[in-house]
Amino acid sequence: MSQTAPLAASVIDLAEALIACPSVTPATGMVFDCLEEQLAPLGFDVTRFAAGDAPDGPVENLFAVRRGPQGSRHFAFAGHLDVVPPGEGWTTAPFLPERRGELLYGRGAVDMKGSIAAMVAAVREIPVDTGTISFIITGDEEGPARHGTVALIELMRERGEIPDMCLVGEPTSVNRLGDMMKIGRRGSVNIFLDVDGTQGHVAYPHLADNPVTKLITMLAELNDLALDDGTDWFQASNLEITDLTVGNPAHNVIPAQAAARISIRFNDLHTGAELGERVAAIAEKHGGTARPIVSGEAFLTQPGAFSTLLADAIRAETGVEPELSTSGGTSDARFLKDLCPVIEFGLCNATMHKRDEAVAIADLDTLTRIYQRVIAAALAAPSVNS
Amino acid sequence: MSQTAPLAASVIDLAEALIACPSVTPATGMVFDCLEEQLAPLGFDVTRFAAGDAPDGPVENLFAVRRGPQGSRHFAFAGHLDVVPPGEGWTTAPFLPERRGELLYGRGAVDMKGSIAAMVAAVREIPVDTGTISFIITGDEEGPARHGTVALIELMRERGEIPDMCLVGEPTSVNRLGDMMKIGRRGSVNIFLDVDGTQGHVAYPHLADNPVTKLITMLAELNDLALDDGTDWFQASNLEITDLTVGNPAHNVIPAQAAARISIRFNDLHTGAELGERVAAIAEKHGGTARPIVSGEAFLTQPGAFSTLLADAIRAETGVEPELSTSGGTSDARFLKDLCPVIEFGLCNATMHKRDEAVAIADLDTLTRIYQRVIAAALAAPSVNS
Ligand SMILES: [Zn+2]
Ligand SMILES: [Zn+2]
Repeated sequence: MSQTAPLAASVIDLAEALIACPSVTPATGMVFDCLEEQLAPLGFDVTRFAAGDAPDGPVENLFAVRRGPQGSRHFAFAGHLDVVPPGEGWTTAPFLPERRGELLYGRGAVDMKGSIAAMVAAVREIPVDTGTISFIITGDEEGPARHGTVALIELMRERGEIPDMCLVGEPTSVNRLGDMMKIGRRGSVNIFLDVDGTQGHVAYPHLADNPVTKLITMLAELNDLALDDGTDWFQASNLEITDLTVGNPAHNVIPAQAAARISIRFNDLHTGAELGERVAAIAEKHGGTARPIVSGEAFLTQPGAFSTLLADAIRAETGVEPELSTSGGTSDARFLKDLCPVIEFGLCNATMHKRDEAVAIADLDTLTRIYQRVIAAALAAPSVNS
Repeated sequence: MSQTAPLAASVIDLAEALIACPSVTPATGMVFDCLEEQLAPLGFDVTRFAAGDAPDGPVENLFAVRRGPQGSRHFAFAGHLDVVPPGEGWTTAPFLPERRGELLYGRGAVDMKGSIAAMVAAVREIPVDTGTISFIITGDEEGPARHGTVALIELMRERGEIPDMCLVGEPTSVNRLGDMMKIGRRGSVNIFLDVDGTQGHVAYPHLADNPVTKLITMLAELNDLALDDGTDWFQASNLEITDLTVGNPAHNVIPAQAAARISIRFNDLHTGAELGERVAAIAEKHGGTARPIVSGEAFLTQPGAFSTLLADAIRAETGVEPELSTSGGTSDARFLKDLCPVIEFGLCNATMHKRDEAVAIADLDTLTRIYQRVIAAALAAPSVNS
């Protein structure tokens, strides 16, 4: 990017520059240098730091802020520079951005270097005295994510840089740019179930205590559990049994242990802790134990000023009425919601995490204009928290 | 044994000679030489042969027959010279027979070199013109048992040597010599269950098809299956789930396959094939498949002349009334029952397959006398098949 003056570069140039820096998760170095070179000339104060230790760290993070007048509002954009491994079968080189017809190919094109580029391009059009704008950018969203956005939030709290709202640039659009934003995400908890029994010979079952029998009865009950019927903004919570383990090679032996793993995606009627306790009670009833690991709590940013100004911007630029959704997996929004209201909106996700990931070049321009409108409206609004 | 004239040796001498030949399954060579040297001087025509190929062969087998007058009855004794590995923690050397107090220690003392020695000693007292006596002895009963007794039966069929009855010398006594004989054994079938599904992300369960859910429902139904309430001579058939396998390390992934293994011990109301089909129907109902492997069919020698003459002999020598049982695991009797009526009776099994396996020296003498009475009665009986 040193040859390309950020103020002159098109959003496609900016996106290509980011894609050209290989950054399979966890991202480090070059791709952060590239983004810093795009932000610094725009007046951003850039802080880069490494967080965490092995095995889930260190992770490289970047916080950039351009402060508006004293007392002005603060709009934050959050995202990640790391990408999932490209895998096999590409028709282009994954880290050599290539324009072909109406598309720009490259790993990260939609998830989410394209939307970071659009946000950088959008900021150029916003006068400094409009308000405070920040970039919350991690190098580890696709990986363990233990020392990424979490560490950035900690830094912001320490510095007292609390945004009024945060837009996460994940690719939330489905068929057409603008057709979906995410106002929440389900929570996620993995629960490890263990049952101990007494080993024995299958010919003498009365001398043994088969843990598999108990595990099957336990899992049948868990499987039948109706957690809820969904809420206004969420689908019903869902439980999946994802693993079973006994590992008994002896055909004539009743094993001593049996284990299973379940995964629950839950809506805002639940917490990970409550579900963990509920499953543990069922496990104990059947002679087993449960060890829950909560990946993230459910969150919901109630539809209101923030979602309205975003929907207005989308409608103005595309004519599309966005659906307000809470579907899909988890994202770093699960951490950011502790800081301020958070909504996710970005490019079309059809090719994310796949080979030949590509973004429609026209969408990059449109997204830039949508983001411009969002920033302007957010910094002008009296309050988004209504 | 070349120094010990079989006709003069005590049953303890004979047992010690067999125990002194290490014969961890599969047994070969020396232990067979030892038995042949005990049988040949008694007028037995000894045939030794190897059967089968790797991995379950070759297996060494011995068939010995002493023919009585034309048209006389034929009594067979069946057993095995192989033993299970001694394992750790013995207070004696497992293959150095040692008399200590009233016990003779050594691997195989009760299972079943002791009873083979008792049968050899018993035969010495039976005049040749009483009838035909044979020994059906394999070197692989404790192992895969695919080329042992099965091959011996084939040889006997080829030669037209079909016994009128067969006594298997397994250690069936429990607390006191004579307290139990086995007139049958349950059958055994292992069934491998597989369910295929469609892999997917736990956040999008509608795009996946979780095979674990189907497997759990299938196993819950199998677990609840009441096969029967037992029969006159058998306890109820029993199903145990012995293994579960998914092997999915990814917490967020619904796996593509799930598998389980069950083991059914069944009585004479069932066949392995029928149970395999019944389980397969349940498996298919839940979208899975079942692959049964039958280890042995149930068999029952109806109480009658054979069990009566054996009970009479036991009662005469011990005062004990033997229980007619069908409990426990499988034995080679599951093959022999195709040849002629078969009952199992031998020493006390408290120490079989354990460290410090030992036989009461007095029991060896008593068992010899019981076997003598059995042979005499069996060869004199008009028919045992009533
Ligand atoms: Zn992403
Ligand atoms: Zn045995």
